[in-house]
Amino acid sequence: MHEQWLFDLVDLAGTFAFAISGATAARRCHLDLFGILAIAFITACGGGIARDLCIGAIPPAGLAEWRYLFTAIVAALLTMLAYPWVERLTYPVRLFDAMGLGLFAVYGAHKALEFGTNAEVAILLGVVTAIGGGMARDVLLARVSVVLQKEIYASAALVGAALAVIGEYLHWPAVWATWLPILVCFGLRFLSLRYHWNLPRFGRGTGS
Amino acid sequence: MHEQWLFDLVDLAGTFAFAISGATAARRCHLDLFGILAIAFITACGGGIARDLCIGAIPPAGLAEWRYLFTAIVAALLTMLAYPWVERLTYPVRLFDAMGLGLFAVYGAHKALEFGTNAEVAILLGVVTAIGGGMARDVLLARVSVVLQKEIYASAALVGAALAVIGEYLHWPAVWATWLPILVCFGLRFLSLRYHWNLPRFGRGTGS
Amino acid sequence: MHEQWLFDLVDLAGTFAFAISGATAARRCHLDLFGILAIAFITACGGGIARDLCIGAIPPAGLAEWRYLFTAIVAALLTMLAYPWVERLTYPVRLFDAMGLGLFAVYGAHKALEFGTNAEVAILLGVVTAIGGGMARDVLLARVSVVLQKEIYASAALVGAALAVIGEYLHWPAVWATWLPILVCFGLRFLSLRYHWNLPRFGRGTGS
Repeated sequence: MHEQWLFDLVDLAGTFAFAISGATAARRCHLDLFGILAIAFITACGGGIARDLCIGAIPPAGLAEWRYLFTAIVAALLTMLAYPWVERLTYPVRLFDAMGLGLFAVYGAHKALEFGTNAEVAILLGVVTAIGGGMARDVLLARVSVVLQKEIYASAALVGAALAVIGEYLHWPAVWATWLPILVCFGLRFLSLRYHWNLPRFGRGTGS
Repeated sequence: MHEQWLFDLVDLAGTFAFAISGATAARRCHLDLFGILAIAFITACGGGIARDLCIGAIPPAGLAEWRYLFTAIVAALLTMLAYPWVERLTYPVRLFDAMGLGLFAVYGAHKALEFGTNAEVAILLGVVTAIGGGMARDVLLARVSVVLQKEIYASAALVGAALAVIGEYLHWPAVWATWLPILVCFGLRFLSLRYHWNLPRFGRGTGS
Repeated sequence: MHEQWLFDLVDLAGTFAFAISGATAARRCHLDLFGILAIAFITACGGGIARDLCIGAIPPAGLAEWRYLFTAIVAALLTMLAYPWVERLTYPVRLFDAMGLGLFAVYGAHKALEFGTNAEVAILLGVVTAIGGGMARDVLLARVSVVLQKEIYASAALVGAALAVIGEYLHWPAVWATWLPILVCFGLRFLSLRYHWNLPRFGRGTGS
């Protein structure tokens, strides 16, 4: 499709933003340079690798396509070099992150459908693509996963992935089936950040 | 076999019990609604998904068969709605959990053999099926895995899986090869709960 | 090749050393006997299993070849029986561990190339083979991964895996393509232990 360049751009922008969130979290845990690069890469590509293992796309694209590794490394190095700036730039970073979230969820669902899975698998793997990297980051840094704790994040990915699958089943034109779910997921995430929307929680937990 | 309905019933009862243990643990860590559903699902299906990846059953049944997702979500929602009751019902929940443990271990070992693996892989993956979900739950909640720490739990699964493989190699009738190992695993777990049996530990650790 | 026996010996010595590091860490976290055996096995074989899943080598060799399970169990049992000795023997254990690190990195990269992956996948999976088990150990024990935090460890594996891939591409004779990268990785690790070399870290973190 002629929007491929736009798709690729959002894909790499999302990878970039995910890698920044990984690098900043790793830096806070006092990892060394290799640890920071590793966590940045895993945050950016971990979800897609888990998806590819579940649909049998061997070897996973996150390992095989150099532009992901390259983007993650550049993002991590820039984060280290310009740390005080990155901390002041949380707003644009979160915007990129929200774009990446929507695109990863939709792309993950599409790729699963292409490999012949049913709708349930496609939706679940769309969510895995979008939030798997962040979950792996938190697991490796030994903390309860942020994506499962606060604001509309994983649930925005779920809405995006579900819309993508519905669009595919109803034979929406490719542009709609791709960009509408991405925009809805991005919009949900953006609004939840702006107005501090949260899913309900239960009890008066004190965290772990 | 004509006991298929009984097998399915125990399968879903085990899924239900595993999901409850995931949901209660997630609630205690103050996760939001999506986080609770996700942890419940992963606790119930994580072990089977890991097994399916290791034997090449793509996509994993835990993602592809809606009854597992459905059972896990129902269990998690009921747990949230009736939390004080669930806390009082620990005894039946533990019984279901012990049944699920035995069935998952035996079913996991059988499925691996069907995919042509050797006895060692079948036994190891039987154990992975039974305890993998609980381990993933604890990893995501950033705590040392309970299944590796106390009482006869993983070791009961090991006995069940090993018996299932032995039965298959000795061509026991299907009913025996399926239900005897499940009952032995269930019995071991039940007795260890009742009489507080533990495997030996070493040193005077203070926990992590 | 006629050095196969030497290769196998280093392979099992590495497995042995990795399992000891898993067993001692598990013991410190107060796991029961099964937990200690499980962590020892996962530390020794987890990296190779992750690699095999990513290249489609089903079932993973770590599960299917009994000598790995056997070596890990023997190492864990000896560690429990002779704990005070093992604590005094840190130096030889670290030497074995460094040998295992180099061999796992090089063997992992070679196996990935054999399965037809490109150079990037081979290098990444070489590193995964070498450090994946240690990362899984730390994740299961709910602590920030040691391999990402200190000294030249993961980066020595990276150098070894990269050299192995370069050697393969330049058609070095098999002995060189195998043993030179192993020795370089081992040497780097050994020197970094001896002289406390570290990769740069950033900020004044206080750990997580």
